[in-house]
Amino acid sequence: MGSCCQAMCNVQKNTNVRVSLPVVCFVWQIAMVILFGVFIRYDDESDAHWEEYKAENNITSDIENDFYFRYPSFQDVHVMIFVGFGFLMTFLKRYSFSGVGFNFLIAAFGLQWALLMQGWFHALDPNTGKITIGVESLINADFCCAGSLIAYGALLGKVSPVQTLVFTLFGVTLFAVEEYIILDLLHCRDAGGSMVIHAFGGYYGLAISWVLYRPKLKLSKRLNGSVYHSDLFAMIGTRLPPLETACKSRQATSDSPRFTGTLFLWMFWPSFNSAITDHGAGQHRTAINTYIALSSSVLTAVAISSLSQKRGKLDMVHIQNATLAGGVAMGTAAEFMIMPYGALIVGFLTGIISTFGYLFVTPFLEKYLKLQDTCGVHNLHAVPGMLGGFTGAIVAAAATESVYSKQGLIDTFDLEGKFENRSVGTQGGFQAAGTCVAIAFGLVGGALVGLILRIPIWGDPADDNCFDDEVYWEVPEEEESIPPVLEYNNHMINKHHELSESNFSVEQS
Amino acid sequence: MGSCCQAMCNVQKNTNVRVSLPVVCFVWQIAMVILFGVFIRYDDESDAHWEEYKAENNITSDIENDFYFRYPSFQDVHVMIFVGFGFLMTFLKRYSFSGVGFNFLIAAFGLQWALLMQGWFHALDPNTGKITIGVESLINADFCCAGSLIAYGALLGKVSPVQTLVFTLFGVTLFAVEEYIILDLLHCRDAGGSMVIHAFGGYYGLAISWVLYRPKLKLSKRLNGSVYHSDLFAMIGTRLPPLETACKSRQATSDSPRFTGTLFLWMFWPSFNSAITDHGAGQHRTAINTYIALSSSVLTAVAISSLSQKRGKLDMVHIQNATLAGGVAMGTAAEFMIMPYGALIVGFLTGIISTFGYLFVTPFLEKYLKLQDTCGVHNLHAVPGMLGGFTGAIVAAAATESVYSKQGLIDTFDLEGKFENRSVGTQGGFQAAGTCVAIAFGLVGGALVGLILRIPIWGDPADDNCFDDEVYWEVPEEEESIPPVLEYNNHMINKHHELSESNFSVEQS
Amino acid sequence: MGSCCQAMCNVQKNTNVRVSLPVVCFVWQIAMVILFGVFIRYDDESDAHWEEYKAENNITSDIENDFYFRYPSFQDVHVMIFVGFGFLMTFLKRYSFSGVGFNFLIAAFGLQWALLMQGWFHALDPNTGKITIGVESLINADFCCAGSLIAYGALLGKVSPVQTLVFTLFGVTLFAVEEYIILDLLHCRDAGGSMVIHAFGGYYGLAISWVLYRPKLKLSKRLNGSVYHSDLFAMIGTRLPPLETACKSRQATSDSPRFTGTLFLWMFWPSFNSAITDHGAGQHRTAINTYIALSSSVLTAVAISSLSQKRGKLDMVHIQNATLAGGVAMGTAAEFMIMPYGALIVGFLTGIISTFGYLFVTPFLEKYLKLQDTCGVHNLHAVPGMLGGFTGAIVAAAATESVYSKQGLIDTFDLEGKFENRSVGTQGGFQAAGTCVAIAFGLVGGALVGLILRIPIWGDPADDNCFDDEVYWEVPEEEESIPPVLEYNNHMINKHHELSESNFSVEQS
Repeated sequence: MGSCCQAMCNVQKNTNVRVSLPVVCFVWQIAMVILFGVFIRYDDESDAHWEEYKAENNITSDIENDFYFRYPSFQDVHVMIFVGFGFLMTFLKRYSFSGVGFNFLIAAFGLQWALLMQGWFHALDPNTGKITIGVESLINADFCCAGSLIAYGALLGKVSPVQTLVFTLFGVTLFAVEEYIILDLLHCRDAGGSMVIHAFGGYYGLAISWVLYRPKLKLSKRLNGSVYHSDLFAMIGTRLPPLETACKSRQATSDSPRFTGTLFLWMFWPSFNSAITDHGAGQHRTAINTYIALSSSVLTAVAISSLSQKRGKLDMVHIQNATLAGGVAMGTAAEFMIMPYGALIVGFLTGIISTFGYLFVTPFLEKYLKLQDTCGVHNLHAVPGMLGGFTGAIVAAAATESVYSKQGLIDTFDLEGKFENRSVGTQGGFQAAGTCVAIAFGLVGGALVGLILRIPIWGDPADDNCFDDEVYWEVPEEEESIPPVLEYNNHMINKHHELSESNFSVEQS
Repeated sequence: MGSCCQAMCNVQKNTNVRVSLPVVCFVWQIAMVILFGVFIRYDDESDAHWEEYKAENNITSDIENDFYFRYPSFQDVHVMIFVGFGFLMTFLKRYSFSGVGFNFLIAAFGLQWALLMQGWFHALDPNTGKITIGVESLINADFCCAGSLIAYGALLGKVSPVQTLVFTLFGVTLFAVEEYIILDLLHCRDAGGSMVIHAFGGYYGLAISWVLYRPKLKLSKRLNGSVYHSDLFAMIGTRLPPLETACKSRQATSDSPRFTGTLFLWMFWPSFNSAITDHGAGQHRTAINTYIALSSSVLTAVAISSLSQKRGKLDMVHIQNATLAGGVAMGTAAEFMIMPYGALIVGFLTGIISTFGYLFVTPFLEKYLKLQDTCGVHNLHAVPGMLGGFTGAIVAAAATESVYSKQGLIDTFDLEGKFENRSVGTQGGFQAAGTCVAIAFGLVGGALVGLILRIPIWGDPADDNCFDDEVYWEVPEEEESIPPVLEYNNHMINKHHELSESNFSVEQS
Repeated sequence: MGSCCQAMCNVQKNTNVRVSLPVVCFVWQIAMVILFGVFIRYDDESDAHWEEYKAENNITSDIENDFYFRYPSFQDVHVMIFVGFGFLMTFLKRYSFSGVGFNFLIAAFGLQWALLMQGWFHALDPNTGKITIGVESLINADFCCAGSLIAYGALLGKVSPVQTLVFTLFGVTLFAVEEYIILDLLHCRDAGGSMVIHAFGGYYGLAISWVLYRPKLKLSKRLNGSVYHSDLFAMIGTRLPPLETACKSRQATSDSPRFTGTLFLWMFWPSFNSAITDHGAGQHRTAINTYIALSSSVLTAVAISSLSQKRGKLDMVHIQNATLAGGVAMGTAAEFMIMPYGALIVGFLTGIISTFGYLFVTPFLEKYLKLQDTCGVHNLHAVPGMLGGFTGAIVAAAATESVYSKQGLIDTFDLEGKFENRSVGTQGGFQAAGTCVAIAFGLVGGALVGLILRIPIWGDPADDNCFDDEVYWEVPEEEESIPPVLEYNNHMINKHHELSESNFSVEQS
């Protein structure tokens, strides 16, 4: 029956990716090999010439290798990218393979392309024409993937694996450009990426989703509801909810993996924000501020969630998402002297705003703006990221020498070289401008990439085939395991039947 | 039918927390903002004045910032608190949302209050009146929450979210006081918290649970068993077992998340015990000892579990709990020169004792002492913590200069300043006294807090409503997904029906 | 009915381990206590004499303690051993308790024995007769366990817990010997253990599995299929697939825990390979190379998986396994100057080879070589490990002073002391020889250990009792939760019945 349904769907769309997916994977992977061969080399701290470098730079101990400053944070970031983001996308009843699996694919491809793109913009040695990489490059590559993974959150269930690779290719490219403009040209500070990662990634995904609007997404779910009735899967409670109820039903499925995602994001966010900040007090302070902001988000998300439901019950969607808003919103300001109470306030407000977003804004966007945002990235990334950018601008503009010390001010805002004379007020203005650049890149870039994704060659699913792992995965035949129930029932009924055919007597053991 | 049942229960208890939960969250979070504003600042190693501090203190490299000594351990501790403790509480069939979710809430609130309470006792600058915080403060705040989370283990399923916040407020307060008495006044050493965390937290929870004894907890489960029969949830195997069989049935549900909890606790316990020990050999030795003790607990827990069951089968409850006892029991002594074989012996014995606890003591406590200990914290925290305290006393008293070196003895037991002349024998005595203080604080404090929690304003569930996520969470309506089975059956029956329509007719709703 | 079935099985095999398992655990744990007491002490960096050691060796800061170089990597390795390997073995429908649980038991016992065995070979002080241990010893002990855990992957479902302890005892012993031969006598470099861990462990498990061949494993599954029909477990979809379809059906069960295993292995592999490499650039470069190789494996595994299935669907088995092949294959060469593009190429090829292995080689081995490899360790460990060994040989032989610098070459290949004059070409030859030694030890050792495991005293399951948690675990009685479905059905039938009682009569027990 499943295959019958699929045949029906295929009239509309061809989801066969047996040629396109392998071809894209191979072509891009081969391109990566060639480009890595031409461009990428180890940096001074990871090259075998390290002993010479140490001697030249009067480094007394191996422990001063950047590896030891950043590797633990890198591993935490890595866990956030693959487990955190991946498991946060496992809430749809029949889409957990794709949630985790395509997240994995996006990140594994994206990080290679990011090493190149970010390398060309930030680490190209003009003499040798080579990009040199170290642990900080790996962190930045992970960050760069995060932008595309956030965008995937808005598109979850509605795109093919080939499309994920396409929007990742463009997403990483756009990321590297906007990052160059914001961090280098505008000379903003944005260590945890409120602007460059979250605001950009969120609006990028939303813009793509808006262009890919599927008007029949809800309707088809209801019309084809029978598909699931006749599907054996439905029997063990895996019927797919229409998108409009997905928000409500998401906890129905695999909540514990999803909570794993939430918790690993929540716990490791201090590492995310501090991973590439200044050695010493910079990393230290960033981690503290993020830790504090996140704890505050939890309480206000709980409060608003409880307020919004009858009998004060909590909604798992809020708890699994809005509690993270404080981390997003501290991406820029966490390395500044925002003070512990400042961090608490940021977490306090964004926890509220994000929960309201899940309650009111996502339904509004879908209904009136035709914007289908599967994971609610608008509330978790786009808006908190934008707020984080402006928070950074305000905190930067309010910086004083008495709080930071003269050297501290220079270090924190990197006011050296040609930016030596920039005032903190000006810096604040540039921070705000940077936020706008990130949003603009996300919206315009996303709209263009959305148009590319509409070309009907990528094997995307039909409207009535979305949110279904079976389209792109060899899902095991559950008939093997289900039939006993049916068999038993059928058996009983048949038996009943046979026996009663003559005189209606049934016996069962 | 579910709502009908609830209406019935509500005659007895009002579990509506729509006012109380948001109010408590907001009031306490606002109080935190104000208190943080008045009191909390960055310490020298996380402040923007770090460069000046480095110059003044002849610190040559950023790597000597305490952040790099402690941050990796901090993150491991953080994972233990949120994933380890959280997932260890997911074994009840219908209570996994609450297990992980309220664990999250307790910790997020508790750590803020802990930063203040521990700050006032340990880090208040008398000149400025400010508390300064750094990465060690974050670890200590996490530790402080652990006390309340352990207590929550004894209360799991029987308290409302408001009550969790109330006993956390008092739990953190009591923790900070007993910690001050034990570590500062008695000058004990207890880096991994056998005494201050585990013995205190365990007895605190047990005392609360004893005061909140619910005589009808079992009975009601049986009497109201029909509730679950008529509940659609029951159809997918989520019927709740009575508490007495909970111990046996716990593995029935979500075992793999629960094992995640066990494993993250087990793996990261070396970080837990070593997180705030002395830099250098102190942290190093503590991690080694804990690693060794834990491995030994696994083998003896397996042995006793197998011995206790017919055909030598293993009981998952023992494997998921008693294997951790070695880590608890090494909380005090791991930083001493207990020697690797000493660590093995401690793990060996506590693995046995803890498994026996699950086999015999928990049922005994419930039957004869009216003490309902949902997670068995008596066997995993209270007793191993107490034994750990006394182990520490013995190992301290047995310390010699030949084993530790003169400086090593001073460093390990911090015998400086006014404790310069304390002998190791005296130190051992104080360690034992400290253990008693922790237990006393747990028992007396817990009894008092239990009385507060009996005030009927906190929205706690009725006896026949315990262990049920539906009371405090918007549980998705599983009818959406279950009916197909019924529909199918109905369909079959109808079909049958139609066939036999000539003979009789059946109507169903 | 379950017990009836078991009685039947027990005619063939006695799976009662109530004496043997506790006895083995206690005897071995007591032996460990004694041997640790006689042999194991703290090393200079974890002993209380650290301050003296610092002064003697002009160490200026505690941060130069080896703990800070290696502890974060150690914890990542620890997670791979317990969560990574453990959860990777949770794919069988009724065998997840055993997958995670016996993995835990093997590792906890194995690491103790490994500390002794590796200590005797590598860290025995000839003057004192003591082994001294530090954080590097813990990492090595974890590595040593990995060999036996890999072997367990081939045996999963077919051995008793007592047998796991037996093959771990021998596995760790063989590991320590082959490691001594390869690393010390042949003076190979193999930091991430392509040879000593993966090739050895893989072939060790395959050889044991070959000796323990169960000809009736498939047949019995079909013959006794009815067992599962009559078993209430079968009703919720836990019927066990025959081994031949296990490969296809594995994703049916607990996929999300399994993906947790995959992801933690994938993410932390850079730590695994770099954990015991040289301080500074050595660790740094190894982590980078492994990170890059793994990303490349993902794309080629996806490509081949998609190519192999109709409509280009992905097979979760490939994604959960072959994506890791790049990490295995970089175990030797990652610390060399293989260059980022070299790492990409290694990942590229092994991703393809490993996926082909799952598609064609495992079925071939089972059909023609009578080799039942439950987890496919042949494709994930044995072959990629062997290839990794030879890759290391080639990269070593191709090393030049211009790429490494003179000192870099000495450091990387440790060409000091009596190996001062060894050329890189010779080194390459020895690397290749080392790979052969690892494979030979695995095959011969595994065959011998297989014979020992065939002695009929270990309580292994009968052919028709394999892959079933119920044999060794107190599995909760699911009847408690299932009946409602039946009851409901019965109820409906009764209702039906009553209504039509006039016409016919139904009887049920």
